[in-house]
Amino acid sequence: MDVKATLVRGGTSKCWLFSAVDVPRERGTLEALLLAAYGAADSRQIDGVGGATSTTSKAAVVGRSRRDDADIDYLFAQVGIGERSVEWGSNCGNCATAIALYAVTKGLVPVAGDVTRVRMHHLGTGARLDGLVATPGGAVPVEGHATVPGTEAEGVPVGLSFLDADGRTTGSLFPTGVRRELLRAGSRDVEVTMIDAGAPLVLAAAGPLGLTATETVEELAPHLGDLIDVRAAAAVAMGLRRPDEPVRHAVPKVGIVGPPADHKTDDGRVVLEEDVDLVVRMLSMFDVHPVIGLTSAVGLATAALEGGTLVSAVARPGLDGVVRLGTPGGVVTVTVSEDGDGHREVTVQRAARVIADATIYTPELV
Amino acid sequence: MDVKATLVRGGTSKCWLFSAVDVPRERGTLEALLLAAYGAADSRQIDGVGGATSTTSKAAVVGRSRRDDADIDYLFAQVGIGERSVEWGSNCGNCATAIALYAVTKGLVPVAGDVTRVRMHHLGTGARLDGLVATPGGAVPVEGHATVPGTEAEGVPVGLSFLDADGRTTGSLFPTGVRRELLRAGSRDVEVTMIDAGAPLVLAAAGPLGLTATETVEELAPHLGDLIDVRAAAAVAMGLRRPDEPVRHAVPKVGIVGPPADHKTDDGRVVLEEDVDLVVRMLSMFDVHPVIGLTSAVGLATAALEGGTLVSAVARPGLDGVVRLGTPGGVVTVTVSEDGDGHREVTVQRAARVIADATIYTPELV
Repeated sequence: MDVKATLVRGGTSKCWLFSAVDVPRERGTLEALLLAAYGAADSRQIDGVGGATSTTSKAAVVGRSRRDDADIDYLFAQVGIGERSVEWGSNCGNCATAIALYAVTKGLVPVAGDVTRVRMHHLGTGARLDGLVATPGGAVPVEGHATVPGTEAEGVPVGLSFLDADGRTTGSLFPTGVRRELLRAGSRDVEVTMIDAGAPLVLAAAGPLGLTATETVEELAPHLGDLIDVRAAAAVAMGLRRPDEPVRHAVPKVGIVGPPADHKTDDGRVVLEEDVDLVVRMLSMFDVHPVIGLTSAVGLATAALEGGTLVSAVARPGLDGVVRLGTPGGVVTVTVSEDGDGHREVTVQRAARVIADATIYTPELV
Repeated sequence: MDVKATLVRGGTSKCWLFSAVDVPRERGTLEALLLAAYGAADSRQIDGVGGATSTTSKAAVVGRSRRDDADIDYLFAQVGIGERSVEWGSNCGNCATAIALYAVTKGLVPVAGDVTRVRMHHLGTGARLDGLVATPGGAVPVEGHATVPGTEAEGVPVGLSFLDADGRTTGSLFPTGVRRELLRAGSRDVEVTMIDAGAPLVLAAAGPLGLTATETVEELAPHLGDLIDVRAAAAVAMGLRRPDEPVRHAVPKVGIVGPPADHKTDDGRVVLEEDVDLVVRMLSMFDVHPVIGLTSAVGLATAALEGGTLVSAVARPGLDGVVRLGTPGGVVTVTVSEDGDGHREVTVQRAARVIADATIYTPELV
């Protein structure tokens, strides 16, 4: 059969986006279509449009929403590479920015002023998130000049925005009741802020650990054990696990922070002190994250703007709603604002570009 | 800008094919277009339609030919991965099969009976080669069930055909004047046939070397030195280099052959003795070739059908124009025929499939 699709880059991912009206509604049939379209059975995806890497074997089905609080409903699919499987349970911030641009480009959401808000509902997890697409002069953008860490390619500025992200996991923004404290981790006391915004995070001051948080991924390698200890202790302190439960390595997110400073990115580009408001190095499981996760960026920016935290203590003084995070991959800019009802909205600046519109032909579906 | 293109799999490669009327004629502008369309500057080709591997970063420009002996002129481009470069000087048999299917599908060449011949002229090297596209019942095929070694994906049967391939490099089919001989290589005499068909080839009998030519790539590794010696000696014997010139490792092609036998492919599939007419293991520079090169397949089949060669001596007796070669990747079928004027045509059976038709949007060209 044949099916229409649009290839959109969101940040450092490529996603084929399908209109909900063009694909089967029944999940098994939809999976068969995606597997055939991507050539998923082959480990090189040589017989389809897949790119045979985790960041280029993503798809989404996008349609108008019937919900009052959303414009768009979408399904996100991680399509198998070398296996006939489709995973629907995860979400992808990069693809969400691609979907927001697609929704505006295809007229699913009318352009509204210089920035068009696309209210998105992820059917896989129930998450609500907003894309803020630059539509300067009220026009649908064909290209833009925004970039994200990880690629020099330019795209249309798209903010990915998290509403009411405070306390989503633990019930409160500061689950331990204080904004800054000494945490016993391994054999020492470490100065940390534990915060639940976007995701539960524990952030340690780099200085007392003999670090600056401008280290390269390589330079940080000998210190990973300390940070893993901090994560394990914080999980208990934040109520994410009982002391007698086994250690989990995915929550909370752990990192170190330091004051603005000149530094180099991992690919050798110079970043000046004046271009960042703080520097940060996060862990992803047992490695240093090459940039920073989107939800971690939300927590960092929130902590930087909340008085009394260790993060606001090291951050550039006088921040006014915009926080520029110096990461190993480059600068990530986060905007924090509040609507009239006191709802906090945290927006990570991203970029997206429409690469191609296509009709995809699949082999006979089996 | 935007440009139309069609993604076609040819064998184990994916190629984006552009119509000559849709792209700039000036080479520099055309290169800029391809670099932008593929996102070539990025090592993951994340901002374009490229697949970021050598077999998925190929393109061709296809148009009607003004030559009497060709229907189609084409340019083949190997597009850079992580660099702004386009290489025009090589050819790609896989893409040539894709181009033949494209030419029939897009109506550049009218369907003619059950098999439609597409006479192709490669502008980069001046080579002429023919694609024989299965058009059963005179209809343009949407899908087919042919496969090639290296992928289980099915496609339309497309034969890639070489006309008058004998003696192209050296001037004669058997450059040493005999069909079978003992060649002094290193410290021993090896029984070989040296032939120039498709490409110059030296083929040794596996048996006297203590081998069967059904070995896996791994099992052959300890014997590579012997074959490299044979190649070096054959180059002199075939007049491809003088004894005082340095050894080149690209010519002639070297391999071992043996009689039909049950064996396993490198990915573990069983091939029965009755499904092959001979078994062969070729070298590619300093490694065992995972399958067999197209031009080597031409030479093997020619040698198998010429009486008095070592290859015909080990091949299944009574071959009648079709030779099934047992390779580490699976069976490659080659057909040899002669037209009324005594011109020999050697056709390697391949498969191709149209994956997508697209409009590709490029960033502003620089």
